[in-house]
Amino acid sequence: MRLERRKKGSAIIVYRLPWTWKCSKLLMKGIHAGLNAVAAVLAIISLVAVFDFHNGKNIPNMYSLHSWVGLIAVILYMLQLLLGVSVFLLPLAPLSLRALLMPIHVYSGLLIFGTVIATALMGVTEKLIFSVKNPAYNTLPPEGVFTNTLGLLILVFGALIFWIVTRPQWKRPKEPNSILLQPNGGAPEGVDGPTAVHFGNMDKSDSELNSEAAARKRNIALDETGQRSTMTK
Amino acid sequence: MRLERRKKGSAIIVYRLPWTWKCSKLLMKGIHAGLNAVAAVLAIISLVAVFDFHNGKNIPNMYSLHSWVGLIAVILYMLQLLLGVSVFLLPLAPLSLRALLMPIHVYSGLLIFGTVIATALMGVTEKLIFSVKNPAYNTLPPEGVFTNTLGLLILVFGALIFWIVTRPQWKRPKEPNSILLQPNGGAPEGVDGPTAVHFGNMDKSDSELNSEAAARKRNIALDETGQRSTMTK
Repeated sequence: MRLERRKKGSAIIVYRLPWTWKCSKLLMKGIHAGLNAVAAVLAIISLVAVFDFHNGKNIPNMYSLHSWVGLIAVILYMLQLLLGVSVFLLPLAPLSLRALLMPIHVYSGLLIFGTVIATALMGVTEKLIFSVKNPAYNTLPPEGVFTNTLGLLILVFGALIFWIVTRPQWKRPKEPNSILLQPNGGAPEGVDGPTAVHFGNMDKSDSELNSEAAARKRNIALDETGQRSTMTK
Repeated sequence: MRLERRKKGSAIIVYRLPWTWKCSKLLMKGIHAGLNAVAAVLAIISLVAVFDFHNGKNIPNMYSLHSWVGLIAVILYMLQLLLGVSVFLLPLAPLSLRALLMPIHVYSGLLIFGTVIATALMGVTEKLIFSVKNPAYNTLPPEGVFTNTLGLLILVFGALIFWIVTRPQWKRPKEPNSILLQPNGGAPEGVDGPTAVHFGNMDKSDSELNSEAAARKRNIALDETGQRSTMTK
């Protein structure tokens, strides 16, 4: 589950790396979805391995709080991935639906990440109690210190991702600005202005969504005049 | 620890209750600090009870990941409380220091809260393994189902607090607006405008801080003309 967690962490922060801001939003969305898809595959492989291990050793499945919370997290993660791809990556969903779901997508992504960290800590706790026997875990043998420290590092990893993802200065700038930098990408007057003002008091992800909506409209308009290749590079 | 967690949760969201927006900021800060202080006292009582229980039953202390993470969380919580009171509640710290520390205060408050939830889930996991013996926890007896469900409810509680605290529409409006509603509270022209524009791209807590800074300056100015009672009601 460790690799999976790292992929999930990287997937969360891809929009927050300033050196990626010059890349197209579509590419970054693809990387975000791709890393999450890799993490989802690793999660499924890990689940199969856990059930196989339990069945091979005649250990019951799905009795612990770790297993309950972990399975719920994996199911929610799959739903998040499916919904994310179909609503935000594929060009199918109406913009109003994207605007409605974006704050929920951001919230549930972070919530699932936090839940996965908590699940990992419960898993470490269980494993130590079951496996460190001679001398027992409660005498704090080297294995205990080592694995407790691993638990602390998992927590520090979660804290770092949470710090990066909540810093406003690392937020990817809104699309219209980057489009305005392109030679042929001048937005029509009055498209962004009112949107930006109107949504000034909303969630940041909402306002970004609306900028993206404006950018999409322009892309479609440019498509019609055969200039799209300059926009999506 | 349960009551303590609930107090901590309530303390986090006090600024997010629309019916409190008409109360003065100072009162709300006092309630925020007061609820956190009550939670801190409960945390200390709980820690003393845990050590007493362990010592009475000859159970070693501080060997588990639960205990490590829990003690770190309590120590960080005390630091957060002390720093919060001395920087944000007492009128001692310069505004620049408040502006610098506010994003860290918000981040670490939420991080400590999340860590406490994870600690509780590890505690539940441990307790179930140690205490549900006949029949064993891994046969999922009623106690197991009941306590796993408690664990899930703790997680849902954390998720709800995280939802409430990240909704922009439940954010307490900035001070200057409420001051403008007061009969004698007209802010001097040009105080808020540039601040609001200048910090438009910063963290919300920063921009609130800066509005608060402007409000404080005005309070001091009004103090000098003997009108403070109309501002703090």
